Amino acid sequence: MSNAMFDVIKEELEELENNLQESIKADDELVTEIGLHLVTSGGKRLRPALCLLAAHGGKDYELAKVLPLATALELIHTASLVHDDVIDEAGTRRGVITANAKWGNKLSILSGDFIFARAFRLVASGDYGNYVADRLAYLVCNLSVGEIIQDKRAFEASTDVADYYDRIKKKTADFVEICCELGGHVGGLSKEDTKKLATYGSAIGMAFQITDDLLDIMQSSEKIGKPAGNDIRQGIVTLPVIYALENSKFSDELGAIVTNKDMTDAMVERALEIVRESGGTDFAMNKADEYLKGAKEIIPESLPADIKDAFIQVADFIGERDF
Amino acid sequence: MSNAMFDVIKEELEELENNLQESIKADDELVTEIGLHLVTSGGKRLRPALCLLAAHGGKDYELAKVLPLATALELIHTASLVHDDVIDEAGTRRGVITANAKWGNKLSILSGDFIFARAFRLVASGDYGNYVADRLAYLVCNLSVGEIIQDKRAFEASTDVADYYDRIKKKTADFVEICCELGGHVGGLSKEDTKKLATYGSAIGMAFQITDDLLDIMQSSEKIGKPAGNDIRQGIVTLPVIYALENSKFSDELGAIVTNKDMTDAMVERALEIVRESGGTDFAMNKADEYLKGAKEIIPESLPADIKDAFIQVADFIGERDF
Repeated sequence: MSNAMFDVIKEELEELENNLQESIKADDELVTEIGLHLVTSGGKRLRPALCLLAAHGGKDYELAKVLPLATALELIHTASLVHDDVIDEAGTRRGVITANAKWGNKLSILSGDFIFARAFRLVASGDYGNYVADRLAYLVCNLSVGEIIQDKRAFEASTDVADYYDRIKKKTADFVEICCELGGHVGGLSKEDTKKLATYGSAIGMAFQITDDLLDIMQSSEKIGKPAGNDIRQGIVTLPVIYALENSKFSDELGAIVTNKDMTDAMVERALEIVRESGGTDFAMNKADEYLKGAKEIIPESLPADIKDAFIQVADFIGERDF
Repeated sequence: MSNAMFDVIKEELEELENNLQESIKADDELVTEIGLHLVTSGGKRLRPALCLLAAHGGKDYELAKVLPLATALELIHTASLVHDDVIDEAGTRRGVITANAKWGNKLSILSGDFIFARAFRLVASGDYGNYVADRLAYLVCNLSVGEIIQDKRAFEASTDVADYYDRIKKKTADFVEICCELGGHVGGLSKEDTKKLATYGSAIGMAFQITDDLLDIMQSSEKIGKPAGNDIRQGIVTLPVIYALENSKFSDELGAIVTNKDMTDAMVERALEIVRESGGTDFAMNKADEYLKGAKEIIPESLPADIKDAFIQVADFIGERDF
């Protein structure tokens, strides 16, 4: 990820890195070692960066005040990825060995719990009040429920697009929304501007997940650091696949593949080919662009120019992900 | 568990049951179904009951005020058991099928995360302030770290008794301590009495875990609803085993068994026999009794007589567990 868009909070992001590493230290060496592996495995820090940017735009902005919140947001993201990797039996993430591959499921599940709990300790230490604490706990509820719904729908080849949007909202957009909203809240933005930033966050979150789902279909396995077609292999139907199920002349063939729990690599390849040729990827890209356009339009006018510019750059960055 | 000792909070415990069932409701049927299965699978409610009892003794006692906290404590306990059962691949708990056996690991891990998060939502809703929120998050950190340390020590046949006490403190005693402490805090007990109840809680928590470990050695498999010798099978060395490793004439034989990762059922039986004959169970029972004696002595004099009596009965109950 090019971090140029976050130049305005460069020093804050360095502090965040320090704080992340501090926050996972435990009075047991192994717990600390696993935590350190997890928080230094190359995340993009998109969530805390958006929180810091939003707070930066407010009249009450103080780094010390918002840092525990920003750190907690990244820890929650980290913990949920650890549990996801256990669930998916993933061997690598972002090209780095996963905790479950390195230390096994037991230590990974427990480390995830530990990191979730550390996030809530940070929130308590930040003295943000009940609203912030409740929003973060709500977020964790939502992440879990989103994954459970996704699992229920697996191998169903459902073309219910509302269901797809609900899933990616729970999985990603609500999270990004909360980062922007709570950053604005803690930074002292007006209620109106905080609400606008929340809407911005939700919209770029939707776009982010749509493009992430697209990457899984369009890119080579080497480039994304995990096998392409991973969603299809798990029976997860994303926007381009839904489009292809409804519009491709090979719709029946595609449906037969994505409902097959024993699908082979060759079947995954064929499904990818059908989706790519259906125009489903263009359709999804256009949808992502619509969300990004809406996001850019709602950035509050009252924000300082450099902060506003950074929010625009983040939206552009999501639209320019390297397919 | 005989609930006579909790007669003084009978109605409160009924409210707790309702609140537990309410608290796990989600906007997805499957999530609600799993949550309901988990909170109605026959727990003893020892933790929330102690919290309610402690609060009941205070000048600010109001059920509505303490109920979210008591419910959150039971939810945290429930969530940690769900993850433990995934880790241990347990098929039943308290004679009831586990979530992992019924719905698989994926839904169980996610449901555990959901229930943890619901606990933190309840705490936010209760408006208890940062101290209470931090103590609960600290508790979840501790539970995870305790399990990780236990796992590290598995199959080591360590006779380090301080290490054993540290493990059961993190795993159980700190939890029971926090239940008593926070109940007293929210109920408006004096600082001194709250501290005394915290010490009481820690002591009965130590006794509770020691007797729980004893049950695994002394009882038949049918009676405890899981295979006897389960700890030994997992290489976990508890107090009677440590005693036997240091004092039995069959110490070497026992050591060879508990360090063997491929131990057979016959070897587990032989280990149980060595421990039972070593006097290790009497030694552990005496230790538990010491803790319970100390606990009873520190119950605050100023508490209402019926509450004081209930705390005494809880300590006696733990000492009389049916071996």
